[in-house]
Amino acid sequence: MHTIPQPQPDARPDERLRLSPLVLGLWRAGRVQLPRPRLVELIAASLDVGIDTFDLADIYGNYAGEQAFGDALAASRVPRDRVRLVSKGGVCLVSDARPAHRVKHYDNGAAHLRASLDASLQKLRTDHLDLFLVHRPDFLFDADELADTLRQMVRAGKARHVGVSNFSPSQQRLLAARLPELAANQIELSVLRRAPFEDGTLDLCQEQHCIPMAWSPLGGGALFTADAPDMQRLRTALAEVGEALGSATPDQVALAWLMRHPSGVIPVLGTTDPARVRIAAGAADLRLDRQQWYHIWQAATGCAVA
Amino acid sequence: MHTIPQPQPDARPDERLRLSPLVLGLWRAGRVQLPRPRLVELIAASLDVGIDTFDLADIYGNYAGEQAFGDALAASRVPRDRVRLVSKGGVCLVSDARPAHRVKHYDNGAAHLRASLDASLQKLRTDHLDLFLVHRPDFLFDADELADTLRQMVRAGKARHVGVSNFSPSQQRLLAARLPELAANQIELSVLRRAPFEDGTLDLCQEQHCIPMAWSPLGGGALFTADAPDMQRLRTALAEVGEALGSATPDQVALAWLMRHPSGVIPVLGTTDPARVRIAAGAADLRLDRQQWYHIWQAATGCAVA
Amino acid sequence: MHTIPQPQPDARPDERLRLSPLVLGLWRAGRVQLPRPRLVELIAASLDVGIDTFDLADIYGNYAGEQAFGDALAASRVPRDRVRLVSKGGVCLVSDARPAHRVKHYDNGAAHLRASLDASLQKLRTDHLDLFLVHRPDFLFDADELADTLRQMVRAGKARHVGVSNFSPSQQRLLAARLPELAANQIELSVLRRAPFEDGTLDLCQEQHCIPMAWSPLGGGALFTADAPDMQRLRTALAEVGEALGSATPDQVALAWLMRHPSGVIPVLGTTDPARVRIAAGAADLRLDRQQWYHIWQAATGCAVA
Repeated sequence: MHTIPQPQPDARPDERLRLSPLVLGLWRAGRVQLPRPRLVELIAASLDVGIDTFDLADIYGNYAGEQAFGDALAASRVPRDRVRLVSKGGVCLVSDARPAHRVKHYDNGAAHLRASLDASLQKLRTDHLDLFLVHRPDFLFDADELADTLRQMVRAGKARHVGVSNFSPSQQRLLAARLPELAANQIELSVLRRAPFEDGTLDLCQEQHCIPMAWSPLGGGALFTADAPDMQRLRTALAEVGEALGSATPDQVALAWLMRHPSGVIPVLGTTDPARVRIAAGAADLRLDRQQWYHIWQAATGCAVA
Repeated sequence: MHTIPQPQPDARPDERLRLSPLVLGLWRAGRVQLPRPRLVELIAASLDVGIDTFDLADIYGNYAGEQAFGDALAASRVPRDRVRLVSKGGVCLVSDARPAHRVKHYDNGAAHLRASLDASLQKLRTDHLDLFLVHRPDFLFDADELADTLRQMVRAGKARHVGVSNFSPSQQRLLAARLPELAANQIELSVLRRAPFEDGTLDLCQEQHCIPMAWSPLGGGALFTADAPDMQRLRTALAEVGEALGSATPDQVALAWLMRHPSGVIPVLGTTDPARVRIAAGAADLRLDRQQWYHIWQAATGCAVA
Repeated sequence: MHTIPQPQPDARPDERLRLSPLVLGLWRAGRVQLPRPRLVELIAASLDVGIDTFDLADIYGNYAGEQAFGDALAASRVPRDRVRLVSKGGVCLVSDARPAHRVKHYDNGAAHLRASLDASLQKLRTDHLDLFLVHRPDFLFDADELADTLRQMVRAGKARHVGVSNFSPSQQRLLAARLPELAANQIELSVLRRAPFEDGTLDLCQEQHCIPMAWSPLGGGALFTADAPDMQRLRTALAEVGEALGSATPDQVALAWLMRHPSGVIPVLGTTDPARVRIAAGAADLRLDRQQWYHIWQAATGCAVA
């Protein structure tokens, strides 16, 4: 696993983003309102295997997930400089926690994003995020305004780096034209959701040195539960490659398959089970060769490449 | 409405294009051969509500629309510097007015476009257009030749600005690589034709500061006539937002919904009815908030955003 | 036909690629293991009509095609500087000639491409290719590594020019961001496979001055054998245009139709029949006017342009 770097008190805004090779996502923890002792355990298990980066969003757990995580992190007594914190803003849920919202919408305007970041910092009990992401592309985002807003977050020291999530290539290209230092685009990506390999998303990330973070990197679990013959074929391929790599598990292989991409994909683990986190971390030690990679691609698509 | 700027006799070619916030399109007027008195009335009604920009094309009214409009404008005795004129060339109809045409085709070659512009100037009784657009992307356009042709139109003073119409993002990017000062891309865009919001068209316009002009901004009328349940749902949403904005009409809301986009969409009104022009102009005074905008999006698509 | 240029012993890497206006492709010759005398005859017929560029790939003829062609070229006693040689690497077939391959895959890694080029040079009995192409886009290509690999091929004098094949616009844009001098993208293109006219492929080629080479430029023969009514309509259109151009044959027209594109499309002929090569070469003398071009487009698509 990645060696945890020393704190960088005077990091310049343009310094390249560094996350652990896998990241723990707290979406599900928020959704199931994971009790604090289990959150503390999950944080400890993650750090124990070198996963020091935690991915949140203002809306997780119906706007309560950041607070729960921040409380657990404080209870864990882990120093701030031992972890890296990612959070997001820009989505507005219809929720009893936001009575003013009448329709689900996005808001990438300056006022909303600034308030969102400030609230995240407070709930996470920190003065900065390592990475702040625009959660979803607001159809109405003004590129100049959004670029300024993100740049000011970095200048104010509230976010070491900024990026986006679920942005299409043309949206990313637009924003990057005003803010070249976009550090990440967090997208849905897995062996079951391969479109970004072909629709230009990963190409643009590689072109712009923007790190793709993969949410649902195991397909939300369908990979291991669905019964369809093509899913069985894919599981067989993952198992075969795992065997060849020395008893690696299928989920390790599915993660390593993503991480093999030259754009530097970082999977965002969705589990709340410390045991699965420990297993998943092993993916960072695997490196598929091209034949193994294409064997899985072929099993996933059902046909050989052209 | 927009304040009509003073004439700019020595405008530099690189000065930003300024049109009124809504534009009157003469496609339908040409098609129905609107009689001169009604054209005169339409021009007056438009100017009266701050719509000083008129959108034509060589082919409108089977190649007779520009002449009819030019005659009506002359009859109106409106000074040239009180109006802004947009026209287009590059489409070749099969028409009794063009006996040499055997197949509908596009021609973005230098000779055709220059002759087209010269003819437009003559018919419109002016020495310059405020904006000349390449009407449709000729599969055979040579980017160097087309860029030179357009640039020379500006240098010769025959067009204050130049742009395109119905260009895809890759076509626009190609031409803009040779001619960065493309001022506009006139595309089909409405709450019923939302693809440009997602396929990169509006993203690229915003990236390149190229103004999207929206033709059929009310969906060619289908918005207000079609009976399908999803259309009724959309009409209900427009009516609700109109109500919230102070008794705005559904067509005003549908136009303001487009104009809310940060790329600066300018609707090209298709009506020949002065009363509808007067109503439509009111859209310029409306500003939807994000919830209103997404409420309409959701009604149009039938589902909430992700 | 194109005048064959003199040899350029000290050609600079950035000098523009020049190929004959049509190219002879050896894919089919490899596939059918065309006997040497017939290869010699094919080479002579090609040179006789000004086609001095030959297109190969390491994998043609199950990895034996380059050797067969190199032997035939040697037997032809044609001086090296009278021909231009194109080859490709980066695809890995499952083949008895490559027992280590367990799955069809792509490999655009430095080691594989270098070895592939070196083997091509040896089999073709030359010290340089005029053009080396990355045959297929490896999902795992690292743009920096690939750009360096290709650049070093040019610097080492082993390839006068480098390019790609079957790259999507976003893949090409990614690689070109690191290696602007990509000279060609060889793609499937014909009156039956028109997607590249509309999906940005030809737009990007024109933008970047990258020559599109068209494989299967006659649709693999379907154009002249299929019985469907729409194919008959297309054949009729080709025949009509051929007649108007002075007894040109349908295949000449179909090729000239491609070559009319301003990006400078170069068809890669797939035939092994010297007679067909001689006929095809005549396409270089044809120039369709726009109406003829759109007449064929309309016949191919079944509808007039918008």
